[in-house]
Amino acid sequence: MPSVDLNADMGESFGAWKMGDDAALLDIVTSANIACGGHAGDADVMSATMRIAHANGVGIGAHPGFMDIAGFGRNRMSVPRATLQNHVRYQVAASVGMARSLGATVRHLKLHGALANMASEDQDLARDLYEAALSVAPDLIVMVLAATAQQRAVEELGCAWAGEIFADRAYNDDATLVDRSLPGAVIHDAARAGERMVEMVRAEAIMTESGKRIPTRIDTICLHGDTAEAVEIAAAVRSQLEAAGITLAQFTGKDS
Amino acid sequence: MPSVDLNADMGESFGAWKMGDDAALLDIVTSANIACGGHAGDADVMSATMRIAHANGVGIGAHPGFMDIAGFGRNRMSVPRATLQNHVRYQVAASVGMARSLGATVRHLKLHGALANMASEDQDLARDLYEAALSVAPDLIVMVLAATAQQRAVEELGCAWAGEIFADRAYNDDATLVDRSLPGAVIHDAARAGERMVEMVRAEAIMTESGKRIPTRIDTICLHGDTAEAVEIAAAVRSQLEAAGITLAQFTGKDS
Amino acid sequence: MPSVDLNADMGESFGAWKMGDDAALLDIVTSANIACGGHAGDADVMSATMRIAHANGVGIGAHPGFMDIAGFGRNRMSVPRATLQNHVRYQVAASVGMARSLGATVRHLKLHGALANMASEDQDLARDLYEAALSVAPDLIVMVLAATAQQRAVEELGCAWAGEIFADRAYNDDATLVDRSLPGAVIHDAARAGERMVEMVRAEAIMTESGKRIPTRIDTICLHGDTAEAVEIAAAVRSQLEAAGITLAQFTGKDS
Amino acid sequence: MPSVDLNADMGESFGAWKMGDDAALLDIVTSANIACGGHAGDADVMSATMRIAHANGVGIGAHPGFMDIAGFGRNRMSVPRATLQNHVRYQVAASVGMARSLGATVRHLKLHGALANMASEDQDLARDLYEAALSVAPDLIVMVLAATAQQRAVEELGCAWAGEIFADRAYNDDATLVDRSLPGAVIHDAARAGERMVEMVRAEAIMTESGKRIPTRIDTICLHGDTAEAVEIAAAVRSQLEAAGITLAQFTGKDS
Repeated sequence: MPSVDLNADMGESFGAWKMGDDAALLDIVTSANIACGGHAGDADVMSATMRIAHANGVGIGAHPGFMDIAGFGRNRMSVPRATLQNHVRYQVAASVGMARSLGATVRHLKLHGALANMASEDQDLARDLYEAALSVAPDLIVMVLAATAQQRAVEELGCAWAGEIFADRAYNDDATLVDRSLPGAVIHDAARAGERMVEMVRAEAIMTESGKRIPTRIDTICLHGDTAEAVEIAAAVRSQLEAAGITLAQFTGKDS
Repeated sequence: MPSVDLNADMGESFGAWKMGDDAALLDIVTSANIACGGHAGDADVMSATMRIAHANGVGIGAHPGFMDIAGFGRNRMSVPRATLQNHVRYQVAASVGMARSLGATVRHLKLHGALANMASEDQDLARDLYEAALSVAPDLIVMVLAATAQQRAVEELGCAWAGEIFADRAYNDDATLVDRSLPGAVIHDAARAGERMVEMVRAEAIMTESGKRIPTRIDTICLHGDTAEAVEIAAAVRSQLEAAGITLAQFTGKDS
Repeated sequence: MPSVDLNADMGESFGAWKMGDDAALLDIVTSANIACGGHAGDADVMSATMRIAHANGVGIGAHPGFMDIAGFGRNRMSVPRATLQNHVRYQVAASVGMARSLGATVRHLKLHGALANMASEDQDLARDLYEAALSVAPDLIVMVLAATAQQRAVEELGCAWAGEIFADRAYNDDATLVDRSLPGAVIHDAARAGERMVEMVRAEAIMTESGKRIPTRIDTICLHGDTAEAVEIAAAVRSQLEAAGITLAQFTGKDS
Repeated sequence: MPSVDLNADMGESFGAWKMGDDAALLDIVTSANIACGGHAGDADVMSATMRIAHANGVGIGAHPGFMDIAGFGRNRMSVPRATLQNHVRYQVAASVGMARSLGATVRHLKLHGALANMASEDQDLARDLYEAALSVAPDLIVMVLAATAQQRAVEELGCAWAGEIFADRAYNDDATLVDRSLPGAVIHDAARAGERMVEMVRAEAIMTESGKRIPTRIDTICLHGDTAEAVEIAAAVRSQLEAAGITLAQFTGKDS
């Protein structure tokens, strides 16, 4: 009986500014990637988001990125490697302690934005950042973009990890995402997104735009919640997985 | 045989900017109050400062303040209480995790700047901030300005604490510090600072400008390191305490 | 034939975060108070907001506040006076230059948030901040909360100014606003807000909750745009003023 | 009779943190590149630095960089081009207005750090950034690294510009700087630095490490002031230029 986790980024409000419909998503996902104050989030937002996640039984993850609030962590930055590792340590540390103050625990790590993109292309970078995170919280399960340099890095480290695919993005034959500027790159149809996920989870493989099948470990599916459409897709993916008899449950960090 | 701890603020450099002679102070003090990125410090500075403190056997403390890098935590701010508690949690959490990544532990808490001043005047504020810190790290020893509302707050909480006096500041008869603008408020003579500290530690009392004696628990002495003169005073205080047979050792958080 | 200006705060988005329906408001108001990067706004937001304001013939104002993005300028801060003046200069300077790069001009100044509240209670503070702004842009028209210390400050300075009342807030008999926590403090009924504004503009007076009449110069009415209701009220105020034969036009800075 | 300008970066203190010996440099240079709050500097530092520069008759320049205080503008960042132009506009605008509040004028522009490095390699980027700056202050003289893409950009724009060489750096045969990690890359001997500058200004050419002569317009020499050695070199360069009969005077923006 296959099982899969559903994750989404959240806690990305900041000060007076709101982002995303976290409350709606926290009824759908099984794991939440919560911003740590680097690219978004602040101490109030972290605390409030973790509190609801914990109450709902949703797994809490640290979601560090470049320390660039003004750019939302979307700019690539040539930060020296040792500094970048400390930035990840700082954000993971903040997450772990904020969670503890609520009686909760940080279960997993997921990199954000430009930092995640860079780590999906560069195994050494990914490994260095994951090692930094694990130096603060050795029991973290590292969420990786399946079949990228991120996955090779966790395999090199031998740590607990979870492989992730996207509900609403088309894949190239090398397991990278189809560029957003191309037609069909982003899936807007909720039913279609749900069908694809059922198909991939059952096949234990990424199905590419061209029809190619890339066998890979699929532990979690990334959903979005920044628009009304996104929440609708998230709900559809969940209900179609359930209708197909796939169990929704947090990843364990080990091959199932 | 009396015993006392010596503490100083450090890790207050930021990015490209250096502040203080931390290396010199880390050879003198027994406890270090290390900035957490709120009013000063950054992930690299925290890590480097904690590393040396740990290697030297100096106790590591979290030193949170208002989250105001541009103002160095010196501006009083009307931040809502619950937010302020989260700001303290966030900074303490960051400290605890950065220390853990180095195999070290955060032993104590000391508030910084305007936040410390406000807490020394307002027992409820002090208690709320200490509770916030303890929700992240329950074993913290809370360093308080002896005989102020900070001390009343830890007595109310019943937590482990350490009472602090200043090596280089004159006291009023109500145990507050003489205003810096008044003559004699700041002690610039290293030998005189050392003599006073020996006298107060032996007397277990603050000796005020007017000659009054305020009995109080003295667990630690605050030194400064931001000028060459300050380091000289710090060294003199240490050597005079040692010459007087007073043991220099970390506070335990309990009355000795 | 009476005439009045309609103003609203805008350009308060920041980075990835949106705030308010500026596009809708820029079809209603005659003057826009545009954040300058101190409490909100960034260079992109300022430029985009100024561009539309300029295209619509809406007067552009600088809207400086405490330099506290995380707190949206809502925290009172004990920033030294000379520093606070430089913070106002910096923000006004940024506004003036960003406007010039678009072929536009900054016509007026309005303080934001906690800084505005403090200036409405403290004539010396208000005067010092206005002097700072005028040192950068001598032709600014200073928008003041009518009948407060802000107004006394511009009268002391002898500069061009515009008196402002609120469309959606009830007044106490001393011309201060009824506390938001009290019933009736905020007017949610669009028609009622419009009627009050027609009444006050015609009377050249603030009409208080108790029925008292405080004669004052009314040059502009403050509208809000952060909710759908707020935009509806803004539109109603505009149409009722027009229906009553009151001309909507930018203030001149002089008594009309 | 040859003439040359001497420039240095300054106003790079921030809040409680000091950097460089600006007072000493302001007795040596004829032009000052003053940070605008993007990578360093704040409103107080800008105002204080501009005030002394203005009193000393030193030309004031805006010195914008990436908006990254934590990284001192040393990290390359993939900020979208239009946003980057607005960041330059914002910083130049702040400089222009802060100067005006002191009765002074911003004469020139010099890019900082990673942004300057990127612009020295990419003519389109340089041109876009210079155009942005000129949209705020059309009379700015643009200071460029002689014989790089920066110079080609100002030639393409047809704006007023000044070509700059470094007093303390060795050159490769393509007019780039010898990498700092190589022996001889940085000149530490004050007398040697002075001799080289006299030679290059007289020759109207960069003299490379290998002995090659690259004819170029030399309008200004870049000095440093962040160390005691740097100030000594700066003073030596000035006195040797004077001893050689070379006039020290602000650049005009035109070929002399």
